[in-house]
Amino acid sequence: MSPSPAHLIRLSDLSDRELEDLLDLAGRLKRRAAAEKLQNRSVGLLFFRGSLRTRTAFESAMHQLGGHTVHLAGASDFWELEAAEGRVMDGRAPEHVKDAAAVLSSYVDALAIRPPMAGHSWASDRRDEAIAAWAKWARVPVINLESAMWHPLQALSDLMTMKEALGDLRGKRLAIVWTHSPTPASPAVVHSLIDAATRAGMDVRLAHPPGYELDEEVARVIGARGRSYRSCDAREEAVEGAQVVYARSWWSLADYGNPTLAASRRARTHGWKVDEDLLARGDGARFMHAMPVRRNMEASDEVLDGPRSLVVEQAANRLHATKAVLLKLIKG
Amino acid sequence: MSPSPAHLIRLSDLSDRELEDLLDLAGRLKRRAAAEKLQNRSVGLLFFRGSLRTRTAFESAMHQLGGHTVHLAGASDFWELEAAEGRVMDGRAPEHVKDAAAVLSSYVDALAIRPPMAGHSWASDRRDEAIAAWAKWARVPVINLESAMWHPLQALSDLMTMKEALGDLRGKRLAIVWTHSPTPASPAVVHSLIDAATRAGMDVRLAHPPGYELDEEVARVIGARGRSYRSCDAREEAVEGAQVVYARSWWSLADYGNPTLAASRRARTHGWKVDEDLLARGDGARFMHAMPVRRNMEASDEVLDGPRSLVVEQAANRLHATKAVLLKLIKG
Amino acid sequence: MSPSPAHLIRLSDLSDRELEDLLDLAGRLKRRAAAEKLQNRSVGLLFFRGSLRTRTAFESAMHQLGGHTVHLAGASDFWELEAAEGRVMDGRAPEHVKDAAAVLSSYVDALAIRPPMAGHSWASDRRDEAIAAWAKWARVPVINLESAMWHPLQALSDLMTMKEALGDLRGKRLAIVWTHSPTPASPAVVHSLIDAATRAGMDVRLAHPPGYELDEEVARVIGARGRSYRSCDAREEAVEGAQVVYARSWWSLADYGNPTLAASRRARTHGWKVDEDLLARGDGARFMHAMPVRRNMEASDEVLDGPRSLVVEQAANRLHATKAVLLKLIKG
Repeated sequence: MSPSPAHLIRLSDLSDRELEDLLDLAGRLKRRAAAEKLQNRSVGLLFFRGSLRTRTAFESAMHQLGGHTVHLAGASDFWELEAAEGRVMDGRAPEHVKDAAAVLSSYVDALAIRPPMAGHSWASDRRDEAIAAWAKWARVPVINLESAMWHPLQALSDLMTMKEALGDLRGKRLAIVWTHSPTPASPAVVHSLIDAATRAGMDVRLAHPPGYELDEEVARVIGARGRSYRSCDAREEAVEGAQVVYARSWWSLADYGNPTLAASRRARTHGWKVDEDLLARGDGARFMHAMPVRRNMEASDEVLDGPRSLVVEQAANRLHATKAVLLKLIKG
Repeated sequence: MSPSPAHLIRLSDLSDRELEDLLDLAGRLKRRAAAEKLQNRSVGLLFFRGSLRTRTAFESAMHQLGGHTVHLAGASDFWELEAAEGRVMDGRAPEHVKDAAAVLSSYVDALAIRPPMAGHSWASDRRDEAIAAWAKWARVPVINLESAMWHPLQALSDLMTMKEALGDLRGKRLAIVWTHSPTPASPAVVHSLIDAATRAGMDVRLAHPPGYELDEEVARVIGARGRSYRSCDAREEAVEGAQVVYARSWWSLADYGNPTLAASRRARTHGWKVDEDLLARGDGARFMHAMPVRRNMEASDEVLDGPRSLVVEQAANRLHATKAVLLKLIKG
Repeated sequence: MSPSPAHLIRLSDLSDRELEDLLDLAGRLKRRAAAEKLQNRSVGLLFFRGSLRTRTAFESAMHQLGGHTVHLAGASDFWELEAAEGRVMDGRAPEHVKDAAAVLSSYVDALAIRPPMAGHSWASDRRDEAIAAWAKWARVPVINLESAMWHPLQALSDLMTMKEALGDLRGKRLAIVWTHSPTPASPAVVHSLIDAATRAGMDVRLAHPPGYELDEEVARVIGARGRSYRSCDAREEAVEGAQVVYARSWWSLADYGNPTLAASRRARTHGWKVDEDLLARGDGARFMHAMPVRRNMEASDEVLDGPRSLVVEQAANRLHATKAVLLKLIKG
C-alpha cells in the first residue's frame, strides 16, 4: 500500500500483489489461522450516512481482533465540516476537516469513513472530495466505507466470495444486472466490483436500461490496465454463459439531483429483476447481491433462497475482508 | 433452552429447571464466583425504541464478561424491515428481517432486540411478530429486550430480587398495583412478572382501575401450569397480607391506539399510587418498581427511599441476570 | 480528591498536590510509562449535547486502558430527567436524576456527563444544577465533560500542554483573546483555563469586547487563592509580552437567552481574530485554541498551521489527561 499512513480509498490504491495478499489474509482469518491482534487499538467510525451491514461487520471485525471502535454518527455526534482550503469559515461548518482529521488521528489508530454526499450534482459528488480531504489530512490510515464512487470493502468481499465459489477467476464471466427498486443506491458497489473483477481476469458484462450508464472514470481505470467490460442492451444477453449473476439497483447519473426526472425514468424499468428463468440462462450461474435487497422486486425469493445464491456468504465475508484490511493498514 | 440457536423471547421458553439454573448462575455472578468469559465475543443490540437501564445493564454485562457490543438504534442506524413472507417488497421497507437476521448472525454471537410496536392495534401488536421473525431467521441466539407482550430479563431480575429478600417464595403473596402516570408503559413487565412469580409458587394479586385488564394470553400461560392469579377491585384488598407490593403503570389495552379515549380513562385514575399507608397494609411488605418511576405520583418519596424499597437492588440485578442469560445462550 | 466516590466537577475540587499528581500521571501515560489497567471496567458517557473531540478522546482513553464505554446520547437514548427534589413528577420528565444515578452506578465504574443547558437564563444555568445532582446521587465517580461553568478536562490538557512547551509556568504570561464567531461557545473553557493557569502561577491577561465579561464566580475562586487576572480593553495590550496567546469565542452572558441582542452585539465584533501581526506582539508567543476553530475568522491559517501553534498538541493531550483522571478516580 501507499506510504505511511496507508489509506484504502479505492481498490486502485492497491497493487495486484497487495490485493492478492489481502485476499489471502482474509481467507486465513476466516479459517482462524491468523493470530495477529489489535489489542487496545481503536478505530473511529464516522458515518455521515446510515449503515447496518458495514457498521456491524466493521465493529465485530475490530472486536474479534481484540480492539475497540468509537462510533460517530453524522446526524448527532458531529457537525458539517469544511473541506475547501484557505476559505474564511463564516458559513455553516464550524470546523475544518484538516483540524478534525489531525485531532482524531491522535486518538485512534485508523479512521473508517462513510462520507456525506450533497446529492445535488454528480459532477461535484463524483469527485469524492470529502473522503479525499480526510485522507489528505489524517495521520492514521483512512478506510473508505463507501463514497459516491467506490466501495472497496464490498468489492474485496465479492472477490473473495467468487474465488471461494469458482476457484481461479480468469476467463470466468460475470454478468452485472441492473434491477428496479424505488430506493436505488449509488453505483459505488458496481464501480468497485468491475474494478476488482476485471483485474482478476474476469470477462464482465453489464446490462441496464438506457440512462443508467456508469461513471466514465470506471472505463478509464479499467482501460489503463488493458482490461475492458462490455455493456449489453438486454439482460438475457449479459447473463448468457455467465458463471455469476450480480444484481444491483443504482440511480441514474444523468438524473442525479433531479428526483422528478429520476422517478419518471424509473417508472419505465419495472421488470428489471432476476428470476429463475433469467438465472437459468447462465452457465450454472451463482447469484450475488450486496444487499439490502427488495425481495420479489429486484430478485425472486426462489433465486435469493435457492441453492445458487451466494448472498449470505458474500455478506458474511465482509467480516473477514474487513479484518484483513484492518490488520494490513494498522499493523502494516 | 430450546434447540440451537436458543432464544429467550419469554420465560415460558424455559423449563423450571432452566429457570432455576439461570437464577443460580446470576447469583454466583453477583458474588463473582463464576469465571466463564466471553472474550472477543460480540452481541448486536437493536433498539427500535429507546432505553436507559436495559441498554446500560446489557452493555456493561457484556463488558464485564470480556465481550463487546454493537449498538444499533432504529432511528438512525437502520431502516424499516419487512417481516411478512412472500411479498413483493415495493413498500417502505427496503430489507427483509430474513436477510438482516442471516447477515447479522454472521457478524455477532447473539442479537438482543427491543422490537418496534406499530401502536395502532393491540390485536396486531400483541402477536409480537417482529421479535418472532428475528427468532425464526437468526442463526444466533435472540434475546427479547421487551416486546409488546413480554420482558423476560426484567422478570428474571425481579424474581432474583424477591428470592434474595424473602428466601423461598412458595406461598408468599405478591401484590401488583397499577399506578397513575401521564406516560404509562406496555404491560410486558407485568405479564412476565406474573409468569415468573406464579411459577415460583407465589400467590399473586392484581389491582387496577376498570379497563386495565391484562392480555388474555397471561391467564392462558399461567393456567396451563395449574397456577392462577387474582384480580381485586381495590388496591387495599390486593395489598392485604402481601410480602411484596409491585407498582407499575401500564396502558389500557381497550384504548390501545386511541390516545383520546386513553387520556379520558386515565383522567379518572388520579390517586392510584403507593404511599406509606397503602404499604403498611401488607405483611411487612417490600416495595418494588421496574422504573422509570414518577416520584410522588406513582409512589411517594417516603416509599421509594424508605427501608422497604427494593427498587435500586432490583435494577442492579438486571446486570447479573443479563450476564447469566448471555453465558447460557452463547456458551450453552 | 474528595471522599468516596470522588468526582471531578471543576478543578477547584482538586488540591494543588492532587492537580500536580494528575499532570505527572498524564505525562507518564503519554510516554507509556504507566502500567495501570482498567480491564473489564466500564464508564457510562451521557452526552446531553454533542461532541467530537471529548467523546473520541474519552472513549479511546478508556479503550487504551483496557476498559469499555457505554455511550448514551440525550437526543435518542434517554429522556428529560427531573433534578429538583420532593416534587410531584407530573411534568415532562418521567424519571428523577436520583434514580437514574443510583441505577447507572450499579452498572458502570464511573459516569462522564456533558449536562444539558436550558439556555434561557444565565442566572439559572450558571448554577450547574444538573451535574451537581448527578454528583450528589451517583455512587460512582462523576466526571464533568463541560457544564455551563466549567470544563476541567480541557483545562488539565491546556496546563499540560503549556508545561511541555514552556517548562515552569510561574511568572509566564498567558493572554486570553476573545474571537469573533457566528457560533460562540460557553465560557466554560476560559473559566477553567483561568482557574488552572493562575494556580500554576501564571500572569493572566484577558481581552474581549464590552459585554463579554466572565462569570463573577471566576474572580471569586481565583481571589480566594490570592491570585488575580486582569482584563484589558485592547487585545494588543493583553498580548504584549505574552508567552501564550489563547483564542476563544464565547457568548455574552449579558445577552444570554436573547439571540437578537446577542447577534446585534456580535455584529460589532468583526476583526476580533488572531493573526501573525497580533501574535508577533507577544514574547515568542505560542498559540492555543481548544477547537472547533473557524479558520480565517477566529485565527488565520498562518497562525493555526504555523510553527508557534500548539492546537493539535493541545487536543492530543486530551487523551492523556483523560486517562490520568480515569485512573485516579476509578482506581484511587
